[in-house]
Amino acid sequence: MTDRIFRVNMSDLSTSVEEVPGPWQGLGGRGLTSTIVSEEVIPTCHPLGKHNKLIFAPGLLSGTTAANSGRLSCGAKSPLTGTIKEANAGGTSAQLMAKLGVKALIIEGLPEGDSWYSLHVSAAGVTISEESELIGKGNFAVTEALDERLESKHGLITIGQAGELKLTGANISVKDPDGKMRSCGRGGLGAVMGSKRLKFITVEASREKLVLADPEAFKLANRAFTKALVDNPISQALGQYGTNVLVNIINEAGGMPTRNFTSGQFEGHEEISGETMYDTIVERGGKPKHNCHPGCVIKCSQVYNGPDGKYRTSGFEYESIWAMGADCCVDNLDYIALADNLMDDIGLDSIETAVAFGVAMEAGVLEFGDGAGICRILQEEIAEGTPLGRIIGNGAGSVGRAFGVTRVPVVKNQAIPAYDPRAIKGIGITYATSTQGADHTMGYTIATNILGVGGSVDPLSHEGQVELSRNLQIATAAIDSTGMCLFIAFAALDDANCLPALIDMINARFGISLTADDVTNLGKTILKTERAFNLAAGLTEKDDRLPEFFSEEPIAPHNVVWDMSDQEIDTFWDF
Amino acid sequence: MTDRIFRVNMSDLSTSVEEVPGPWQGLGGRGLTSTIVSEEVIPTCHPLGKHNKLIFAPGLLSGTTAANSGRLSCGAKSPLTGTIKEANAGGTSAQLMAKLGVKALIIEGLPEGDSWYSLHVSAAGVTISEESELIGKGNFAVTEALDERLESKHGLITIGQAGELKLTGANISVKDPDGKMRSCGRGGLGAVMGSKRLKFITVEASREKLVLADPEAFKLANRAFTKALVDNPISQALGQYGTNVLVNIINEAGGMPTRNFTSGQFEGHEEISGETMYDTIVERGGKPKHNCHPGCVIKCSQVYNGPDGKYRTSGFEYESIWAMGADCCVDNLDYIALADNLMDDIGLDSIETAVAFGVAMEAGVLEFGDGAGICRILQEEIAEGTPLGRIIGNGAGSVGRAFGVTRVPVVKNQAIPAYDPRAIKGIGITYATSTQGADHTMGYTIATNILGVGGSVDPLSHEGQVELSRNLQIATAAIDSTGMCLFIAFAALDDANCLPALIDMINARFGISLTADDVTNLGKTILKTERAFNLAAGLTEKDDRLPEFFSEEPIAPHNVVWDMSDQEIDTFWDF
Repeated sequence: MTDRIFRVNMSDLSTSVEEVPGPWQGLGGRGLTSTIVSEEVIPTCHPLGKHNKLIFAPGLLSGTTAANSGRLSCGAKSPLTGTIKEANAGGTSAQLMAKLGVKALIIEGLPEGDSWYSLHVSAAGVTISEESELIGKGNFAVTEALDERLESKHGLITIGQAGELKLTGANISVKDPDGKMRSCGRGGLGAVMGSKRLKFITVEASREKLVLADPEAFKLANRAFTKALVDNPISQALGQYGTNVLVNIINEAGGMPTRNFTSGQFEGHEEISGETMYDTIVERGGKPKHNCHPGCVIKCSQVYNGPDGKYRTSGFEYESIWAMGADCCVDNLDYIALADNLMDDIGLDSIETAVAFGVAMEAGVLEFGDGAGICRILQEEIAEGTPLGRIIGNGAGSVGRAFGVTRVPVVKNQAIPAYDPRAIKGIGITYATSTQGADHTMGYTIATNILGVGGSVDPLSHEGQVELSRNLQIATAAIDSTGMCLFIAFAALDDANCLPALIDMINARFGISLTADDVTNLGKTILKTERAFNLAAGLTEKDDRLPEFFSEEPIAPHNVVWDMSDQEIDTFWDF
Repeated sequence: MTDRIFRVNMSDLSTSVEEVPGPWQGLGGRGLTSTIVSEEVIPTCHPLGKHNKLIFAPGLLSGTTAANSGRLSCGAKSPLTGTIKEANAGGTSAQLMAKLGVKALIIEGLPEGDSWYSLHVSAAGVTISEESELIGKGNFAVTEALDERLESKHGLITIGQAGELKLTGANISVKDPDGKMRSCGRGGLGAVMGSKRLKFITVEASREKLVLADPEAFKLANRAFTKALVDNPISQALGQYGTNVLVNIINEAGGMPTRNFTSGQFEGHEEISGETMYDTIVERGGKPKHNCHPGCVIKCSQVYNGPDGKYRTSGFEYESIWAMGADCCVDNLDYIALADNLMDDIGLDSIETAVAFGVAMEAGVLEFGDGAGICRILQEEIAEGTPLGRIIGNGAGSVGRAFGVTRVPVVKNQAIPAYDPRAIKGIGITYATSTQGADHTMGYTIATNILGVGGSVDPLSHEGQVELSRNLQIATAAIDSTGMCLFIAFAALDDANCLPALIDMINARFGISLTADDVTNLGKTILKTERAFNLAAGLTEKDDRLPEFFSEEPIAPHNVVWDMSDQEIDTFWDF
């Protein structure tokens, strides 16, 4: 099926299917969403106003049998950061959209009136329906209701109450093979979807197979690629303990932000570690290995059951466990799992929201360690849109501004994730310079700073951090365009067969002849496109800075501050 | 007495008295506060953190017998706008500080621990005391308690609960001759004082007279200056009806923002007009004429009594009445007066807060017209620091972000005042380009656009608006440095004797020979100093823009949109 652009105008409730413009043809995933945002969205527009657009795009390899290629990219101007934003997630929608020939789905305009809507995407185009039954409902209720309403194994992209409330901590959830939620987590994209009064998008299940330019070459390349992934020791660790394998590693490295970023180590780390989690999952009959989208061979997800042996959450990530665990001092995985599941249901970014709780704890709204309090506020305040719920649901910066807290770990108003930049300086460069606010996934220097993947760069030294972050940010922008999960990067960095096989797959898919240099150039172009958008929106290099407390408060156990100079940071863009 | 710099370091609770550095000697008021902020405050610092400084300075003529010279300037980096900020107010402190030889009072650092403090300023220096009794109290309770505690007619600079809570709508209040409050209103300077854990500053009453370089010349010049003021018809109208004379004028002009800026005329304008207010004051035994600082000859203030004949508020300004009246659709002066008095007591900027209520009404938090609801929220939510109170008390932008409202009338996050920029385009240029966020007092083009003072520029045309705003912003920056009330501008613009007399007074005070060009150059230098600070803080010309809804929603009765181009706006800085 020929790829086309599916476009929805919510202002007049019209839809169209368009040819893919020439310059967009070689793009997918983040490369495509960022290009469309850059070309079609007024950089200074109000992110919740009619000039913003919400764009979904499968990756270049999504819909094929390529391992780990099922990520769906979502882009817009972020209401949280004011920057361009791309977030991607697993689930089944990317592969289904690719099979339907959806190169990108562009949603623009705002409807008049108070009605809510849903979209259904099929090969014929998009239909818009009014929706009332599911408004105010959480993601799980939406999933269940639609499983009854529709006959097929449709894809589902949805927002919970957080998105309806236009909270800037709202994510966009994508249904996974088990009917649970994978999240385009960061930057408040759920609020953009809510502003367009769009509760959910269903994607028709297609049995069509993508036509490949060279099926045989594709198969061979995919075999090599898959082997590189499954042979990689980090892939294997991720498969066993999930991303939460990192708790003990990062705690040991003294870089696990604790108690709203006042220490680099958490006393209760054993209670929340990947090892403890694994044992608990096995003991309670959960699933230690689980994939978030069909075709994943790493399987870092898992199903975590409660003490009663019943499902409590899945996709239980290090980031969420760190944020509610160490950063909020909750040393109890059951509370964290409950909160994680609530955030999946309400549709909240678990990094932004949990870091916001950490700031709220510093402000005295609740006590550090109060896991029950977190769960109560999630259910009774955030999901209900009370004033306190709105303050916390709008993220860490919002809590800081509301309560006059100065120790607010954000860059470009987005919460800093699970690695303290004082103790791991490479990741600080990523936080500072990322086009999208603080985000570890934009250039995961932890690989090289801590895990020894792709070489080794001392986390405490200044040497090589900018170059490391730059190279990883360029590579990540390219990977985010393929539909691949970022976790292929560990194999790509250390296994000489991995990246060539990935490029071979793209070439075999489209009948082209990309080189490794082309891929690097794609990454550079994406970063520069995104940065140009941000500059046109009014950001400057002054936004590429960490909050001042990082430069002034040494963090234990290394007792170091953030001391990369502004000049060093600004060399990031010298490429 | 030789002027000196009084400095307080709250970090170590030390104080010092320093010589005035050479370049600061010719400066006063805003010229001095902005210069000190620019030289001593890190532009990118957190406004509530230890690197911000709070600076008070009397004007060049404060403490003399010059008419209308009793304004106290206060400067800092604003927690509301992120820009440099100067706000000035009447009251008695400027004149007392000038008599004590206080060229400027600089308060820096942040104390450790939870204690609150007060300062006492005398000719010998500043003493710091711990304060507990008055913490959590409103401004009126502070005033009364200190009147009992101190023997003399001290000056008082204080924050209410809003400043203690570090709300960005918090003002700094200055006691007036009747023990009521005058406000350094805009930009959340009260939150900066609160961040330094400083509840109030008392200023010793001095009986000393300032030594003038040429007393005779001063007397003659002051006589001419005073005559220009009292003969001016606008001064006279201000004396009779207060600033609220503007309700009928601006409503007639179709430029009175109504119902959160959805119309330019308010049905209930008669009920809240200056004429109605005057009649009510007279009927209830209030005072229609009243001065906010000793020596004022315009007397635009008044004392407004309630239906019971008892004091309800004073300094009842057009801005406050417009904002709660037209913008929130409350057509009842008694409610507005009650809310005004509550805001004086809690220490809230009545523009920022009332515009925030207008946005909250659009969000459905309360109904348009609900004056009782406003008063309840002020007392029970904002003064108590509840989550809703914090959202509203942090200003219009805060409410917009919390509730996902796109129609938020702010520039640089500061609420737009009482003149709609669509119908009065000159003031739109001031809102857009002011170094301090939307602020009519920074370049009051209404004088020429509507009142026919200083010539005439059609409010609906593009022609001449940028030049008008530029000339007025330059003049205002200079006037704000003298300690003069801005209302001398009406006489200065239309009476050829006024400005020379003002310059003669400055020359006679200091034994210097300023010319009119020197004064203009001072104004230009101040604006450029302020803008340089903002650019160094990370702002760009993209911040010099009105919210997009002004360009897209025509306003009745003229059915015009804001259509000054970005290019036109940016020519403002061509000087």
